[in-house]
Amino acid sequence: MSKRVINFYAGPAGLPLPPLERARDEMLDFAGTGMSVMEISHRSKEYEAVHNEAIALLRELLNVPENYKVLLLQGGGNLQFCMLPMNLLWGGRKADYVVTGSWAKKAYKEAQIVNKEGARCIASTEGEGFRRLPTAAEIQVNPDATYVHFTSNNTIYGTQFKQFPQAGNVPLACDMSSDFLWRPFDVSPFGFIYAGAQKNLGPSGLVVTLIRDDLLAQCNPALPTMLKYGIHADANSLFNTPPTWSIYILRNVLAYNKQIGGLGAIEASNQRKGELLYGSIDRHAGFYKGYVTVPADRSLMNIDFALPSAELDDRFVKEAKAAGMVGLKGYRDLGGIRVSMYNAVTVEQVQVLVDFMEGFVRKNG
Amino acid sequence: MSKRVINFYAGPAGLPLPPLERARDEMLDFAGTGMSVMEISHRSKEYEAVHNEAIALLRELLNVPENYKVLLLQGGGNLQFCMLPMNLLWGGRKADYVVTGSWAKKAYKEAQIVNKEGARCIASTEGEGFRRLPTAAEIQVNPDATYVHFTSNNTIYGTQFKQFPQAGNVPLACDMSSDFLWRPFDVSPFGFIYAGAQKNLGPSGLVVTLIRDDLLAQCNPALPTMLKYGIHADANSLFNTPPTWSIYILRNVLAYNKQIGGLGAIEASNQRKGELLYGSIDRHAGFYKGYVTVPADRSLMNIDFALPSAELDDRFVKEAKAAGMVGLKGYRDLGGIRVSMYNAVTVEQVQVLVDFMEGFVRKNG
Repeated sequence: MSKRVINFYAGPAGLPLPPLERARDEMLDFAGTGMSVMEISHRSKEYEAVHNEAIALLRELLNVPENYKVLLLQGGGNLQFCMLPMNLLWGGRKADYVVTGSWAKKAYKEAQIVNKEGARCIASTEGEGFRRLPTAAEIQVNPDATYVHFTSNNTIYGTQFKQFPQAGNVPLACDMSSDFLWRPFDVSPFGFIYAGAQKNLGPSGLVVTLIRDDLLAQCNPALPTMLKYGIHADANSLFNTPPTWSIYILRNVLAYNKQIGGLGAIEASNQRKGELLYGSIDRHAGFYKGYVTVPADRSLMNIDFALPSAELDDRFVKEAKAAGMVGLKGYRDLGGIRVSMYNAVTVEQVQVLVDFMEGFVRKNG
Repeated sequence: MSKRVINFYAGPAGLPLPPLERARDEMLDFAGTGMSVMEISHRSKEYEAVHNEAIALLRELLNVPENYKVLLLQGGGNLQFCMLPMNLLWGGRKADYVVTGSWAKKAYKEAQIVNKEGARCIASTEGEGFRRLPTAAEIQVNPDATYVHFTSNNTIYGTQFKQFPQAGNVPLACDMSSDFLWRPFDVSPFGFIYAGAQKNLGPSGLVVTLIRDDLLAQCNPALPTMLKYGIHADANSLFNTPPTWSIYILRNVLAYNKQIGGLGAIEASNQRKGELLYGSIDRHAGFYKGYVTVPADRSLMNIDFALPSAELDDRFVKEAKAAGMVGLKGYRDLGGIRVSMYNAVTVEQVQVLVDFMEGFVRKNG
C-alpha cells in the first residue's frame, strides 16, 4: 500500500482518517449485522440509528434551534439552485441574490429560469473578476424579499464572508457547500442553508440542508413530490431511499468532529492554518501573488495565488506532488495555484506545504 | 467479526462479496493515489477512469446500441418519476401509463402533477390488488403517445413482466429499479430506462438511466438545468459532482458481473433460484400461499407469500433470522413473507432458504 498523500483537492476533498478507517473495518459487517451499511434496508433499525445520529450530531455541533428541519437530500448544490426558487419563488414572491462568483451566479441563473421577474441580483463583483466581496453598503436587501441568497465561501476565486450580509427581517439563504462547519455560527438569521457534503462533510451525492419552519410553511404545494421540501421534512428525509452510505460517512465524520472538540476546536485549527499559509504568501508577496484584493475577504478554505510565470506554477505543482501533496493546480479558468484546506487538512499538513513554499521561493524567487 | 448473513432485503439489498472486499482493500488508497475514491476530484484522471469504465461495462453487458446515452444521476427512481414527464410531457405531448403496483402508480401520479391532461392511465390491476399484470390485450397503447411507461418488476406485490408490453412505434419507458440486469434483453424498443442502483447494481443514491437520442431531442429546453437530461448527456454525467463512491461500487459490481460470465450466466442463476423457491411454494401450496394469482406473472426477484397465520409468519421470520437469513418480513402494507433475491443472492443461498422452508412446513404444516 502506498503512503497516504496530503490532499488539497477543492472537492471531492480529503476526509479525516479515523472515519475512513471505521468505514473500512465495518465494510463487510456493519453494527454486527453481517452486512455492509450499503446492503441493509433504510427502514432497518440499524440504518435508522445512523441516520438519526447524523442529524442529531449536526444539530448538536451547530446548536441548531428547534424551529429548523435538517434534511439530507440528493442532487448536490446544483439541484438546490432550482429547488429553492421552485419552492419559495412563487405566488408573486421575490428574492434577492448576491453574486460573488461562478456558483453564486449559477444559483441566480436557475432562480431566473424558475421565475424571471421574481429573482433579482442586488449586488455583484463580477466586473472586478470576483476579486473581492461586495461591502455591507453595497448589499441593500429589499424588505419585500422572501429570502436573500448568497454563497458563504467562493471555492473558485477564494473569497469568504467572515461576516454574513445584514438583511434585517429578510431570511438569509446560503450555499455553504465549501465552508459549512468550518466554525460555529448563529443559525438564527438563516431561513435556508445547504451544503454539498463533498468538501467538509463526506462523500459526494449528499447535500445537507437546514430550513426554518416559517419558510417551510410558504413552500409551493403544487410541485412534483420529490422537489418539495415539506415531503422530506415530514418523512425525516426517509420519504425515498436516502444515500445511505454517504449519510453513514457523514455520521462518522461528525462523530469525529465532536470527539476532537467540536466546531470551536475546528475553527481554531482553521484559523491557525490560515495564519500559516497567508503568512508565507504575505512574506513573499512579490512571488506568491494572491488573487483576492481585499485581505478581509480572503478565504480560509480556498486560497488562490499565482507565481511569476505559468512555468513556475507548473513546477510548483509538480514538485509539490513529488513531495506528497496533491490537488494544488489552480481552477481551469484561473490558472495558478489553489490550496483547498477544508476541515480534514491538519495544521501539520499546512506546515509541510508552507515549508515547501518557503523552500520553493528560495530556489526560484 | 460476525459471520456474513444471507441477505433477502428488498432494497437496499445485498451486494456480491468481491466488489465489497475490493472497496474495503482500497479504502485508504484507491488506484495508487494514496486517497479514498471519495476524496479525489471528479475531474481527476483516476476517477474519470472509473466513471467511464462503469458506463462502458453497462454498454457492453447490455449490448446498448450507439443511439442511447447512459446517464448516472441522483435522486433515485422518485426523481425520475417527475424528470421524465418534465422533459417529455410538454408542448401538447401525451404519454400512457400502465399501473401495476404502488411504484407504477406513483410514477403516474407525478406525471399528472406535471401535466394533468397529458398523462393517461391505459391499464391498471389495482382493483385486483395488483395480484396479476394486465394482459397484452388489456394494454392498448395510444399511437399518439410520446412514450408508454411501465414498471418491469413489482417489488411490493411480486409481479414481473417476462414479456414487455407491445407498443408498436411508441417508445417504452420503464422503471427497472428492481430487476435491471437480471437477464439480457433487447434495448431497442425502449426510449427510456431507469433503475435505482440499490437493488441489483450498488448503493442507494445513484440512478442509472438510458435515453434514446430521438427522445433526448424532444426534451423541454426551458427546465432548470439540473433537471434536463440533455445537460447530463452532453457532459457524460459530469455536469455536476456525481456520486463518486456509488459509481465506484457500480463499477466494481459490473466488473464482477462480467467476470462471472455476463448477463447470460446471471439469468441462468436467477432462473434456477426461481425454480427452487417456487418449487417449494408450489409443493406446499396449502401452507405457503403465494400472493400473485397468475403463475406467468410471478417475479423472480421478489416473492410474496403468507403462512396460514400471522403468528406463523412471525415465527418463520424469527427462526430464519436465527438461521442466518435476514430481510424476510413482508412489506408493511402486505404482511406475510417477502423473499427478495436479486443478482447478488446465490443459488446456494436460496437452497439454504428452501431447505429451511421444507423443514418449517414439516414442523408446522
